[in-house]
Amino acid sequence: MLDFRAQAQAFESFLSQLTQASMFNSGPKNLYAPCTYMLSIGGKRIRPAVCLMAHELFAGDKLQDALWAATAVELFHNFTLIHDDIMDAATLRRGKETVYKHFGTTAAILSGDVMDIYAYRCLENVSEHRVLPLLKLFNQTAIEVCEGQQMDMDFETLSNVQREEYIEMIKLKTAVLLAASMKMGAICAGAAVQDAQAIYDFGLNLGIAFQLQDDYLDSFGTEAELGKLIGGDIRANKKTILAITARERASDAEKARLAALIEYEGEDKVAQTIELFKSTAADEICRNEIAHYTRQAIAKLQVINVPEERKQAFSDLLHYLMHRNS
Amino acid sequence: MLDFRAQAQAFESFLSQLTQASMFNSGPKNLYAPCTYMLSIGGKRIRPAVCLMAHELFAGDKLQDALWAATAVELFHNFTLIHDDIMDAATLRRGKETVYKHFGTTAAILSGDVMDIYAYRCLENVSEHRVLPLLKLFNQTAIEVCEGQQMDMDFETLSNVQREEYIEMIKLKTAVLLAASMKMGAICAGAAVQDAQAIYDFGLNLGIAFQLQDDYLDSFGTEAELGKLIGGDIRANKKTILAITARERASDAEKARLAALIEYEGEDKVAQTIELFKSTAADEICRNEIAHYTRQAIAKLQVINVPEERKQAFSDLLHYLMHRNS
Repeated sequence: MLDFRAQAQAFESFLSQLTQASMFNSGPKNLYAPCTYMLSIGGKRIRPAVCLMAHELFAGDKLQDALWAATAVELFHNFTLIHDDIMDAATLRRGKETVYKHFGTTAAILSGDVMDIYAYRCLENVSEHRVLPLLKLFNQTAIEVCEGQQMDMDFETLSNVQREEYIEMIKLKTAVLLAASMKMGAICAGAAVQDAQAIYDFGLNLGIAFQLQDDYLDSFGTEAELGKLIGGDIRANKKTILAITARERASDAEKARLAALIEYEGEDKVAQTIELFKSTAADEICRNEIAHYTRQAIAKLQVINVPEERKQAFSDLLHYLMHRNS
Repeated sequence: MLDFRAQAQAFESFLSQLTQASMFNSGPKNLYAPCTYMLSIGGKRIRPAVCLMAHELFAGDKLQDALWAATAVELFHNFTLIHDDIMDAATLRRGKETVYKHFGTTAAILSGDVMDIYAYRCLENVSEHRVLPLLKLFNQTAIEVCEGQQMDMDFETLSNVQREEYIEMIKLKTAVLLAASMKMGAICAGAAVQDAQAIYDFGLNLGIAFQLQDDYLDSFGTEAELGKLIGGDIRANKKTILAITARERASDAEKARLAALIEYEGEDKVAQTIELFKSTAADEICRNEIAHYTRQAIAKLQVINVPEERKQAFSDLLHYLMHRNS
């Protein structure tokens, strides 16, 4: 079994003890029911799991600190999902109704707010000398996540988003939180400053690579590995790395065809668009970007100053995440 | 001049330096414009001012700590206003369009979120040994404010809210933040634990008294001191302390008239309702409650262990706030 899965399970036990014992258990029901609902939808607990993995990587001895840091990250992540779903008018998440759909917008706003505050409250419980470094990293990351979400929304109405801007957006919107989760685990283990930074950079590059691969597989993956139909992003006219790169590199004729395909709703919309991704070499460029960020991640893992065998869990995680199409 | 006004001005200078130098100044414009807009609408800066007053009460020497704590409180307060205005569908605040009305709901959600995170970021800047006590108080208070807002919304659809429940709601929704503002100033001054608690209790009781008086003056104040027409709460069928007390104490005949007045929209709706507030003695009970919480506040101020003359600013503030109808 991947160490990642074991850590995700360890986190899940800690979280369920918390929610059974105290958290979201007293006070106004209408405030806390949406919080409990959101947490019960689950998800893969990736961020808390990598926080605990990083704590183990640096042989931390205060597991409680890492568990509280992991909980802070997971609550923050769930808070952003609750609010993002309102902003995106998304009705389903992980196959269940979103919080705003299930409880209403007002409930989703206020319950999201209180979940964010509970995330901060977790930081009270770590060893006192770690409160400030964790708080600083957490604040910086949280601000970046909001900025990434804003960029993502801004991009919807822009026609000329550049590839670098898009990568900056996914970095802020998703990669920094993965990176910070790892660094928080490192801080809780008392890792050296440069090692804590290296695991952050590992997470950042892995997060970007993973997000780019997500875009890539929507067009070039198999339906078995995606678990859904190919081309969902294309049908929704989403500005993915492929769409942005294709537009950047298209000849005038290809530009016209791409523009026409946005309006087009025929059955072969997906197939025709994928053809253009190939003819503009957007597919190749995207693979190169994914390979670039994956290599960067590997390089960052290599410079971390711990025995190589302790890095295995992170190495396994990287291969698990980045080779799902092989 | 009231010391309160001087402290509010001192805070205003600090805040405007911050916003000019760095805060909300870089990053996505659409994220930060609503934050700057909300702060520019102003308000009386009551919470940061009393934070600074409490710091002075205990002869604190690190003014910077108190200024950052005051900023945290003011940003948090403004974040709650941005989100409350969405939930209440309020179009105007302080005579200006609310954030959600001006920038849209999506912007108001995300900009509110980031403003809350900036509030937490302020706490990074206080002396390190004060970070944890401030963070704990801030988290506890923030959770209570959310719970108060939820209770307020829950009450809208309940017909039998009790007076004690209503007072609990205003305590959580507004009084705890005033109380915490003062206690944060006390913590930044290194006040003794029991003194910090006493100034908290002073703020809590004053906050409740003020809020109850606000309800009372809507029916029994003068239009000059209200700055608006008498009876706004009555016309909006708001569940104020007067409405709740009148319903609790009404005879069957009075109950029927109160119920009928809720539906009634004639010119004499306000006058008739006020008559019922008097005949049920709701006015007298309300005055007694206000007097009770005001006396409690005064008693808490008295036990604080500092020279009497240093309490003058708080005593002046109490008289200023609680005698606006005399």
